[in-house]
Amino acid sequence: MPTEKDDHLYNMNHRRRGKAFVFNHMNFDPKLQLRARNGTHNDRDNLRIVLRQLDFEVEVHNDLPYKEIERILEQASMEDHSDADCILVTVLSHGELGILYASDHPYKPENLWTHFTADKCPSLAGKPKMFFIQACQGDRLDSGVKMVSRTQTDAGAASYKIPSHADFLIGYSTIPGFYSWRNTTAGSWFIQALCHVLQREGNSRDLLSLLTRYTRGGVQALCHVLQMKGNSRNLLSMLTRVCRKVAFDFQSNVPGDFVMHDKKQIPCITTMLTRDVVFHRK
Amino acid sequence: MPTEKDDHLYNMNHRRRGKAFVFNHMNFDPKLQLRARNGTHNDRDNLRIVLRQLDFEVEVHNDLPYKEIERILEQASMEDHSDADCILVTVLSHGELGILYASDHPYKPENLWTHFTADKCPSLAGKPKMFFIQACQGDRLDSGVKMVSRTQTDAGAASYKIPSHADFLIGYSTIPGFYSWRNTTAGSWFIQALCHVLQREGNSRDLLSLLTRYTRGGVQALCHVLQMKGNSRNLLSMLTRVCRKVAFDFQSNVPGDFVMHDKKQIPCITTMLTRDVVFHRK
Repeated sequence: MPTEKDDHLYNMNHRRRGKAFVFNHMNFDPKLQLRARNGTHNDRDNLRIVLRQLDFEVEVHNDLPYKEIERILEQASMEDHSDADCILVTVLSHGELGILYASDHPYKPENLWTHFTADKCPSLAGKPKMFFIQACQGDRLDSGVKMVSRTQTDAGAASYKIPSHADFLIGYSTIPGFYSWRNTTAGSWFIQALCHVLQREGNSRDLLSLLTRYTRGGVQALCHVLQMKGNSRNLLSMLTRVCRKVAFDFQSNVPGDFVMHDKKQIPCITTMLTRDVVFHRK
Repeated sequence: MPTEKDDHLYNMNHRRRGKAFVFNHMNFDPKLQLRARNGTHNDRDNLRIVLRQLDFEVEVHNDLPYKEIERILEQASMEDHSDADCILVTVLSHGELGILYASDHPYKPENLWTHFTADKCPSLAGKPKMFFIQACQGDRLDSGVKMVSRTQTDAGAASYKIPSHADFLIGYSTIPGFYSWRNTTAGSWFIQALCHVLQREGNSRDLLSLLTRYTRGGVQALCHVLQMKGNSRNLLSMLTRVCRKVAFDFQSNVPGDFVMHDKKQIPCITTMLTRDVVFHRK
């Protein structure tokens, strides 16, 4: 089923969902003076489970030096993805503004995706290229604000050109300049929330079967289920849900440390997608 | 109708939709050596019409110096927005990487939104704060890639804290480092596409009335209309549609200039929203 130029959904019905890379970092070269990222193995294992459930072929790499990360991504960009829906890359590491850490030295986040632009990786042209990054982007802390609950506070063209930089999505755990929180046993707030939402809502039911189940209840019941489930099927709506979960359900708890205690976090999702992403079951 | 903590939609049923500012720049201080932005008045007039249709109180400002822009935004942040759904700010100007131009000198795009964080502007806390920027972010050009059409190509808690930096959306006409295209009569590609999509899809029909109209056709017809219209109602889906329109429907046409001819563009949408935005008719 090829996608027509004006389709509002990406074609997610190729033979394979595609590859998902998880670059997990727990320990770093001592010269970098970075602390071990306790809890990250939980994120890694969660991601592996959830991404497999979404039919990705998951490849996990632990504590790689930068040259290795680059080699793996460069190699992936040279493979033939013609029978795959998309590609997904996750990095779990330390970071600063504009910097991520491999086990041996820092690199620019852009290096993760520049290999995959449509001109450099034609078999992924017009397909979603998704990057999720759990890392600090600085040391600023968000003290949050208290809310009181009731206040709320032309199909058929023979060929067409697309921008080389279209169809990317970059989900960062935190906004530029800010700290990104991780629980040393449960894992980072962002990856916990991402896995929770993708696991519960990621595998889309076929809309027809959903409707058939609910038409018995009449139009009113249908409205309800569609408002609850219809919108949540696409990736951007799920990521809005992830932002809500991180923003509302997590708060730092370091009573002994006035500076770090009681802080909040908001993820930052940047999209250059040109269609909605829905993970139909394979 | 207050929004509950877990609602998946922002409350867009306040008495007022809220203010929308359009900072339009055609001419600049000669010392900046910037060319007149012909066509921008078309963008401005389009935006005024479309934002009014979405029930915003639109305030247009032409060729303001930076101090004036700052004064207006600072004042807006000190107003009481308790009976408003949201706020929206648009800037149409020249820019570079990390820079926007007022009529007299450059400023950082962040200055547009830092006044509106939940700690500084409590009456907009938990409400969408939307920024749309038409400006270059550099001089890189995207030559694009040819696609062949068939290939594809806890409710009830008494109170809770939210991050001060949540609920922002920033729509940039182009990605960091890249040029942003403008037709000297029709206006910029991004604002043309934004207005087109918001005008056609922005004013959401009530889902119930939509369903009632289509239930006659049976489940199959319902599926069709919901896939076409159901998802498109929320702002992020509409912005995906805007990205698709800019990416597919526009291409530069400067046959005499090899460097500038036949180029493409992709907008860059960054979201920290925690719920979906749907513009119910007031």
